[in-house]
Amino acid sequence: MTQKRQLKLGTMLHGPGGHVAAWRHPDAVADASVNLAFYKRLVRKAEEGKFDLVFVADGLYITEKSHPNFLNRFEPITLLAALAGFSTHIGLVGTLSTSYSEPFTVARQFASIDLISNGRAGWNAVTSPLEGSALNYSKPAHPSHELRYRIAHEFLQVTKGLWDSWEDDAFVRDKQTGVFFHPEKMHRLNHKGEFFSVQGPLNIGRSRQGQPVIFQAGSSEAGKELAAKEADAVFTNHDNIEAAKRFYQDVKARAARYGRAPEEILIFPGIAPIIGHTQEEAERKYEQIAGLVHIDDALNYLGRFFDHFDFSQFPLDEPLPDLGELGSEGFKSTTDWIKRIAREEKLTLRQLALRVTTPRKGFIGTPEQVADEIQEWFEAGAADGFMIGSAVVPVGLDDFVELVVPILQQRGLFRTEYEHDTLRGNLGIPVPPNRYRSGQSTASEKSRAPELEASKQ
Amino acid sequence: MTQKRQLKLGTMLHGPGGHVAAWRHPDAVADASVNLAFYKRLVRKAEEGKFDLVFVADGLYITEKSHPNFLNRFEPITLLAALAGFSTHIGLVGTLSTSYSEPFTVARQFASIDLISNGRAGWNAVTSPLEGSALNYSKPAHPSHELRYRIAHEFLQVTKGLWDSWEDDAFVRDKQTGVFFHPEKMHRLNHKGEFFSVQGPLNIGRSRQGQPVIFQAGSSEAGKELAAKEADAVFTNHDNIEAAKRFYQDVKARAARYGRAPEEILIFPGIAPIIGHTQEEAERKYEQIAGLVHIDDALNYLGRFFDHFDFSQFPLDEPLPDLGELGSEGFKSTTDWIKRIAREEKLTLRQLALRVTTPRKGFIGTPEQVADEIQEWFEAGAADGFMIGSAVVPVGLDDFVELVVPILQQRGLFRTEYEHDTLRGNLGIPVPPNRYRSGQSTASEKSRAPELEASKQ
Repeated sequence: MTQKRQLKLGTMLHGPGGHVAAWRHPDAVADASVNLAFYKRLVRKAEEGKFDLVFVADGLYITEKSHPNFLNRFEPITLLAALAGFSTHIGLVGTLSTSYSEPFTVARQFASIDLISNGRAGWNAVTSPLEGSALNYSKPAHPSHELRYRIAHEFLQVTKGLWDSWEDDAFVRDKQTGVFFHPEKMHRLNHKGEFFSVQGPLNIGRSRQGQPVIFQAGSSEAGKELAAKEADAVFTNHDNIEAAKRFYQDVKARAARYGRAPEEILIFPGIAPIIGHTQEEAERKYEQIAGLVHIDDALNYLGRFFDHFDFSQFPLDEPLPDLGELGSEGFKSTTDWIKRIAREEKLTLRQLALRVTTPRKGFIGTPEQVADEIQEWFEAGAADGFMIGSAVVPVGLDDFVELVVPILQQRGLFRTEYEHDTLRGNLGIPVPPNRYRSGQSTASEKSRAPELEASKQ
Repeated sequence: MTQKRQLKLGTMLHGPGGHVAAWRHPDAVADASVNLAFYKRLVRKAEEGKFDLVFVADGLYITEKSHPNFLNRFEPITLLAALAGFSTHIGLVGTLSTSYSEPFTVARQFASIDLISNGRAGWNAVTSPLEGSALNYSKPAHPSHELRYRIAHEFLQVTKGLWDSWEDDAFVRDKQTGVFFHPEKMHRLNHKGEFFSVQGPLNIGRSRQGQPVIFQAGSSEAGKELAAKEADAVFTNHDNIEAAKRFYQDVKARAARYGRAPEEILIFPGIAPIIGHTQEEAERKYEQIAGLVHIDDALNYLGRFFDHFDFSQFPLDEPLPDLGELGSEGFKSTTDWIKRIAREEKLTLRQLALRVTTPRKGFIGTPEQVADEIQEWFEAGAADGFMIGSAVVPVGLDDFVELVVPILQQRGLFRTEYEHDTLRGNLGIPVPPNRYRSGQSTASEKSRAPELEASKQ
């Protein structure tokens, strides 16, 4: 008897909540983005709820108009490493840029978190949308969208290659014979590509899950292509189930063209459930959250997706003029969505700003209603799992873990105990065998392609 | 009544021990360099001993001939972040390269550890001695010693500038008024220099100690100059008290030329005490450790300081020929020392290799003898504190904490309780006031020089 396909769940670590004014909510911890005790509590709550992973987003450029959570926040590598010791089963996934980092350092830092956490690390590889990032990194210009993705492809190949520097049985540490390691099980990558030239070996070995899990979060054509080729999981955002299904099928079809099975790449739409004992209570909670935002802040928030474009130059209560190519280099899929709803629904600037600031994408209702919607998306082929954001945490996460998770468990959709204590184990995705596996001669190293076998744990 | 000048103590986190064959010792934890439980135990032991700090070294290039501890080890940023949660008072100092990193990332990661640990972070800024590092970082060549130090000066200025991006009272988080922060207390660095162009602001604020403590570990002329200008503390190595005194006086005199008081820069010679109940027992322990090394490994270890030069081409039992300029770009002060003792003491290659592999620099004896030597160095002006390495840990650290520390405490040289819970507080070095202190207009930002006042906590 095969087990029913199981839902996967992640939760965002995003300060007091994903909402731009979350910090003002009476139940919010206003300094959450730099409060380790707060994050420790969240990770423990998520682990109590048998979540697969926690997820940390990131950015490399701020201005006075940035989301308050972004102004002053822990750096992802340090936060995940600090949380590793306060958790035992949950995956630790963090964002790092392929446009403003070095593969040797990124490979090392995630490999180190992977060993520290005993096989629970994941890397969300992003290309950094914000133009201003270049100003903080001594670069003459922010690379174009197309160039960033070309860099990202090579960056991921280098990183994965470095992660295989040491075969799993390379370190012997035999005190009697004095043999510390087998030199023939240490491998140099000798990568020379368009953007990177990296010899190796990496100065750290593999964890029990082989390599950290790769997440990808861009939903543009280039983003989907990178995901299909290199990622184990995709974090995405959709405002309805139909859009989510199209995306899901698209990515799985692209992955198939790279010879990958559908279950080797997991799709996680982000949702921000608001839960009440009744539908009305949930709606009141939504209104309370929406009411925390000042219209000036809503305009700033909208501008953030368009390279901090100043929307206050337009009248508040008239339909927005056509935005043309504005913002197309940055958060491309988000700005496309914003422009589409503005046009299709003939929204005024005020309506658009509030809609973007406090989005309504469903998942607002009683625990049963939210569970129904999750089940519908999951069974319709719109999601393999969900990234649970909370408009306001801890409220939102507590509600979800205490009220929705038990329903999902009762319906046989979600685990009641962890199956594994590695992230790959819980996600049910393959452990990549080391590309240089034992017994093969080092002479053929340079020409060998990586073998990523679908060998289930 | 002013308190007697107090000794400072740090301990190295260097896997199974500093000795090249430490891992073979019967009491060693052979996989210590990737064993978090081992490091947690060490940090707790050091905190029990009221140590000021733990210290993690680093490197960016390995070969088959590298020190076994370097082949497979945790990356410093992740290790320190992971240990922050398992300690409360001890400083967490780690090495990161100014030659192969970006100031924005380095500033962020250390600032984040500083907030995670509530004011206990320190950065050992190194320029990376190993030529091969360039091969792992897509660089056409490893920068020269002179160039590396020029980069390091600018790197430190940028990092310190970014650390002041937010005044200490910038974040208000007033839920009632909706004021999250004071925009006039957020500052852009707008640095444009020879090597870096960094706008800022950094997306993280200051900790209770203001900025992470800066360590510097190069003992060349350029290294001493960098330390004198920018560092709060210096990690150094000397084979006798006279050399240590000269170095100590040299660095303090250089610091004075930058307008700094002698007590604003602390000198930490590294020592590796071997402690026995009797002098004879300590000597037997030394012999046991020295006996763990095979002569081939000793030659490899020696070669490490000379860009992996192959010494096996010379006869083992004859004096070494003159080495000329060999190795001068790398570990300059160490190779100078090696060449000097080879020449002055007319050592054979075998003698030299074993001497370098298992150095004898004193501090071998009974707890009283070791305490005497520490007191002598401290009172003679050769050290403000010591970086305690252990040929073999945990043995060496346990002996030191249990047998030597109580003697130093009885003599009034070392604390019996922590004075503070920040690293600057315990080291007794000033908290740098934010360069943009409150009330000053942002218009003058660009022209203002940093003010580092000697205001004691």
